Amino acid sequence: MNLYELSEIADKRFSNGEEIPQNIIDGIKNIVSEGGYIGMAQINPIAGNVEYNAKKIAKYIKYSSKIGLDMVVFPELALMGYPIEDTIDRHPVIVEENIKWLKGLAKITAKTTALVGFVEPRKKNAEGKKYFNSVAVLKDGKIQGIIRKSLLPNYSEFNDYRYIEPSPVVGIQPTETLGVFENPVSSSKLFENYGISICEDCWNNKEFFDKNLYEKDPIDELAQENPEVFINCSASPTRAKKEQLKHNMLSFIAKRYKTPIVYVNQVGAIDNCSFDGSSRVFGANGELIARAKSFEEQFLIVNPKKGVGKIYPLTKGLDKSLTEQKVFTLEYESDLERTYKTIVQGIRDYFNKCGLKRAVLGLSGGLDSTVCAVLLADAIGKENVFGVSMPSHITSKESKSDAAELAHNLGINFTEASIRPMIDTTTECLNDLFKVVESKWDGRYKTPFTPDNIQARSRAMFLWGISNEFASCIPIATSDKSELYMGYATINGDMSGGFAPIADVPKTKLFAFARWMNENREIKNAIPEAIILKKPGAELAIDPKTGKPLIAEDALMPYEFLDEIIWRVENKNEGYNDLLETTFVYEKHNQISKEQKIEWLDKFFRRMSTALYKWSILPPSVIVEARSINKNDYRQPITSGRINYKGVNENHINAILSDYL
Amino acid sequence: MNLYELSEIADKRFSNGEEIPQNIIDGIKNIVSEGGYIGMAQINPIAGNVEYNAKKIAKYIKYSSKIGLDMVVFPELALMGYPIEDTIDRHPVIVEENIKWLKGLAKITAKTTALVGFVEPRKKNAEGKKYFNSVAVLKDGKIQGIIRKSLLPNYSEFNDYRYIEPSPVVGIQPTETLGVFENPVSSSKLFENYGISICEDCWNNKEFFDKNLYEKDPIDELAQENPEVFINCSASPTRAKKEQLKHNMLSFIAKRYKTPIVYVNQVGAIDNCSFDGSSRVFGANGELIARAKSFEEQFLIVNPKKGVGKIYPLTKGLDKSLTEQKVFTLEYESDLERTYKTIVQGIRDYFNKCGLKRAVLGLSGGLDSTVCAVLLADAIGKENVFGVSMPSHITSKESKSDAAELAHNLGINFTEASIRPMIDTTTECLNDLFKVVESKWDGRYKTPFTPDNIQARSRAMFLWGISNEFASCIPIATSDKSELYMGYATINGDMSGGFAPIADVPKTKLFAFARWMNENREIKNAIPEAIILKKPGAELAIDPKTGKPLIAEDALMPYEFLDEIIWRVENKNEGYNDLLETTFVYEKHNQISKEQKIEWLDKFFRRMSTALYKWSILPPSVIVEARSINKNDYRQPITSGRINYKGVNENHINAILSDYL
Repeated sequence: MNLYELSEIADKRFSNGEEIPQNIIDGIKNIVSEGGYIGMAQINPIAGNVEYNAKKIAKYIKYSSKIGLDMVVFPELALMGYPIEDTIDRHPVIVEENIKWLKGLAKITAKTTALVGFVEPRKKNAEGKKYFNSVAVLKDGKIQGIIRKSLLPNYSEFNDYRYIEPSPVVGIQPTETLGVFENPVSSSKLFENYGISICEDCWNNKEFFDKNLYEKDPIDELAQENPEVFINCSASPTRAKKEQLKHNMLSFIAKRYKTPIVYVNQVGAIDNCSFDGSSRVFGANGELIARAKSFEEQFLIVNPKKGVGKIYPLTKGLDKSLTEQKVFTLEYESDLERTYKTIVQGIRDYFNKCGLKRAVLGLSGGLDSTVCAVLLADAIGKENVFGVSMPSHITSKESKSDAAELAHNLGINFTEASIRPMIDTTTECLNDLFKVVESKWDGRYKTPFTPDNIQARSRAMFLWGISNEFASCIPIATSDKSELYMGYATINGDMSGGFAPIADVPKTKLFAFARWMNENREIKNAIPEAIILKKPGAELAIDPKTGKPLIAEDALMPYEFLDEIIWRVENKNEGYNDLLETTFVYEKHNQISKEQKIEWLDKFFRRMSTALYKWSILPPSVIVEARSINKNDYRQPITSGRINYKGVNENHINAILSDYL
Repeated sequence: MNLYELSEIADKRFSNGEEIPQNIIDGIKNIVSEGGYIGMAQINPIAGNVEYNAKKIAKYIKYSSKIGLDMVVFPELALMGYPIEDTIDRHPVIVEENIKWLKGLAKITAKTTALVGFVEPRKKNAEGKKYFNSVAVLKDGKIQGIIRKSLLPNYSEFNDYRYIEPSPVVGIQPTETLGVFENPVSSSKLFENYGISICEDCWNNKEFFDKNLYEKDPIDELAQENPEVFINCSASPTRAKKEQLKHNMLSFIAKRYKTPIVYVNQVGAIDNCSFDGSSRVFGANGELIARAKSFEEQFLIVNPKKGVGKIYPLTKGLDKSLTEQKVFTLEYESDLERTYKTIVQGIRDYFNKCGLKRAVLGLSGGLDSTVCAVLLADAIGKENVFGVSMPSHITSKESKSDAAELAHNLGINFTEASIRPMIDTTTECLNDLFKVVESKWDGRYKTPFTPDNIQARSRAMFLWGISNEFASCIPIATSDKSELYMGYATINGDMSGGFAPIADVPKTKLFAFARWMNENREIKNAIPEAIILKKPGAELAIDPKTGKPLIAEDALMPYEFLDEIIWRVENKNEGYNDLLETTFVYEKHNQISKEQKIEWLDKFFRRMSTALYKWSILPPSVIVEARSINKNDYRQPITSGRINYKGVNENHINAILSDYL
């Protein structure tokens, strides 16, 4: 067996918690004994659970020693998990804990060097933030030196600069500087000819990027010392389009400095961030030598100098996005496997890491709850999912039977529970109440949406009831990204839950996603075709014209049009006026008047403004797209909702200011 | 009349939107004609609403010109409002708008210099972030120069570094550098002998602070040029204990450099941040010369060189906190006026800036909803508040009558609406549903809290119904800080609403707060004594032992003990082990066993861990205390909830790691 056949057996044993057979150990040992082999320990940590992470690290240190690797590399902040955020400021006890474990881990090392990420407290009154984001070099039972992160991302989901001080120096510093680092004192930036850096430190090449976020380029500094190999310890979450940039950048660095680069990424999800792993090695010519699996823990052994490695296939979507998407398209196909794995991992890790086990969700027979049900079944197991069809007087027979069929196909638990008694009682109570309020207050709406919301909230009442009554169970919020942008989601209704799986997936992508799941899951066609074919509608109100339930697109606008607005706003930073000038894909297939377009654009910006509050109380979700409305990714004061999206011209300003002359 | 008598008349006219009478103008003009007078325009902007802010600025520029001031100073980012957060990245159109308005405002200036804060876009591909946080010097119809912020706070509620690039230079730069700034080119850092800086720039004196957050000290750099006066444009929200630091620091700077300092602060609330204003001037000896009102817009005219100014009284609490609180105490008296004004302003501005008008809340006859009702009546007007008593089978007669009496005393709208039909219907529906679920799932709780939550959610259903049915109305979440720490709040129940007024006020403070309001509001004793005297309890369940409703302290722990934990965790960064060693105030008056103390501490950390999710979906609220759980102030991954609060010792680690040797 070759190195990778042996390694796969070992990896499997690892994930099952079993001992690695001696003959496998010996086989690998034999191969790596020629020297220069590195283990890339692509692990899935729990943020702040230092002991859990330390045991995982210890396991791979022990294994690396046994098989005789030169080095084993862990992701950024491996002991603490990334991101850890303000937790280290509010609970400094876990930082002490991570230092104790680090010292303990040093003691179990021998000839194999281990690179272990940790939070390093600085001297008590040191200027700046309290901590460094550091990597310790462990060998021969000791901490041999420290590398500290210089470039601190502080945008989108990243907040490194809140509690981390940027390191003024690059490369290795003596072990005596642990926790007391003041000024650079090392003679070489390298450790045994390895040029070691942390995540963002490699994202600032001045030749590669048109625009740089920082002045310093740690990799260029390291390169001046002529390392044999670059190593980068990372924690870089997957987002649409990021893979292309990462691949090209790492390849560029290797080629530019004629030095192989070993990039070890975290895997698993921490709250809204889903990390894809896909750790890799590029050779001195910029060619890809090795790549670990995506969305799985793996221990990948490579020899960067000799070009020994194995390239595991990237999850589709990561792969396809190597060509950056420049225009909006409804062809989501290329990104669906990545979308699926990102969310499934996001759900699974949220449940596991929070100690949750089961989920309950309303099955309306519509697309949103359907896709959520499939994702949940795959993430936490069908036996742990309960779908509840909760018909009202408006719910069609088809909705009920579609929901039942879906549940049957998925093998999840299912029941039907009518909300009609809830609606009747609530409506009666509220009508009495409204009469009293009306005697004091004007402004009662003529066409109220109260009845719609009563339905959504009655359903949530059922789901939260089950969550309260049964251990380790949370309800699921089924709102999708398109509808959240429009605030088309009921507070304490469909947008309430313990987790919101598809909050970053636009509606048009969900259609493609459903089809993809029907084709690509082990059990084919679990989603009834009728669910994919029907027009989305919340089935909350009857259209007085047709006598049938209102369709969402009538209340909003065509989803194709809406999703292109969202894509342009998020990916191209286009504003109202840009959008007005753009020819939408929808316009190519449908004649719409300028007035119609203006009406939709106005509606979009108006509704988005008032949706800010809803976004602020949205349950935890997974970031999938290049940009999102996730509150960890996008911060806008709610009171700033009514900004002027259309811009002004100087005449308007001058006319107003003429009063102040 | 003296300068301040005249100014107060002018200020009153301003706030009523009336013209300033010519004799007032002439009177002030006469006084300030000797030169050296500065207007401190302490304004309340709306974040992102550039036109609204620009008109306010134009009004004061015009007035300053008319009365012949040397200079008028506006707060940090006056044109945009602070904080503006990611809004400028997602909607760059408002940055363009603020540049256009800035240029327009320049044109209306003449001899009076105006310092106007704005967001300055940098050159398209400039290294670093896209924007500077800048102040423009406007005079003689032109932009005369630009000052850029060097120190960017990025902790607690501050996120400046997310989209702002720190300025490498201090002091004034030529106007040609607007938007294209590359390298410093000015010969002097001063503008007409004024040393101008922005907010955090003055918070890094190396002699004053034991620990500094930044290397650079902009004030010290400015001081090298011997300015006659320092000016600092600020937006600094009130927080418990901050006033003392600010006062002493500004006084120190003035004295240290023998240079008066004019500090102009924003007033008003933007989401969770409530700014107190209290703009001020310190003379060259460090003595306070002038101070504007707290929590009010004001235009205060001063002459820093001549020591002309008026010292308006600080809101009590700001004042008292000049002596920093080193120990936990139940004597909240000194901070209650500040607490009141912080929250009232927070509510009022949230409503005004969001276009909301009315609030509806459940009145349980308990302390939390009572305090919320008073605050709302004072913030938005009693006619705009609707209190609803929503009794269940558990609600006592006293609770109902206390609520009615409170509403009567406050003059707010009031009605009673029983939730019994809701409880009956929901319980019946859920019992059927639970039977089905139980046939598939184990883990049904023996002593379920489902019935408690049904009550809380039925009430929220009523309140949200009213919010849906009546224009510009939101329901209020009445959860307090102590109970939120313990997760003692019902999702979609009492913790749901459009705003959470007392989410940062601990329970023991609420008792003192209620008494303070009874003594200090215009209408005395609006809060019935019975409400203050009764033991807090949610009245959701009956204690089987006593047959009376369960008291919250039985489910949690004594509030005195709980609030001291919270205070120590937040203010002293104490962890589990520190707390175990501390003698609590509660322990001085009550004998408790070590076991009891351990039980409470364990409960605190366990419940706090699982409350992280609830904090993430908490409605907008106002930050009051030195630290808070507001999600804009404190970021912790929900999946990191189960961290080890107790720490570990080396023996534990060595024992585990011995397996990995």
